[in-house]
Amino acid sequence: MDIKSKIGNQIRRLRHLRNLSQEQFANLCGLDRTYIAGIEQGKRNVSIVNLEKIAAALEISLSELFEDI
Amino acid sequence: MDIKSKIGNQIRRLRHLRNLSQEQFANLCGLDRTYIAGIEQGKRNVSIVNLEKIAAALEISLSELFEDI
Repeated sequence: MDIKSKIGNQIRRLRHLRNLSQEQFANLCGLDRTYIAGIEQGKRNVSIVNLEKIAAALEISLSELFEDI
Repeated sequence: MDIKSKIGNQIRRLRHLRNLSQEQFANLCGLDRTYIAGIEQGKRNVSIVNLEKIAAALEISLSELFEDI
């Protein structure tokens, strides 16, 4: 599995643990829902600036976001 | 300090620990030396695909690359 799919799966897993819809999560991140959908599907080569927004919305560090990846 | 500068400083620090020049490191990553220079200067919004190449060249996990950031 490539890194885009791995991080996409991880983000979806962590979002589900928090019982957030894609729309709720996108709002927390300040990103578009379709962009979050693309990340979770492993289609987007997400950048460090957006990874930081995602980690902040999940209330974890970037190091934790990549744990077991 | 923004996240681009933080990861840039971290990458430079880890590269220096390995006694690698930017050119040697860029070759290990399979990336251009000027691109590595831009990352280290905090000017590039580096993507997950290139972060994976950088972590692999440093022989660490992505989680370790983000430690203390």
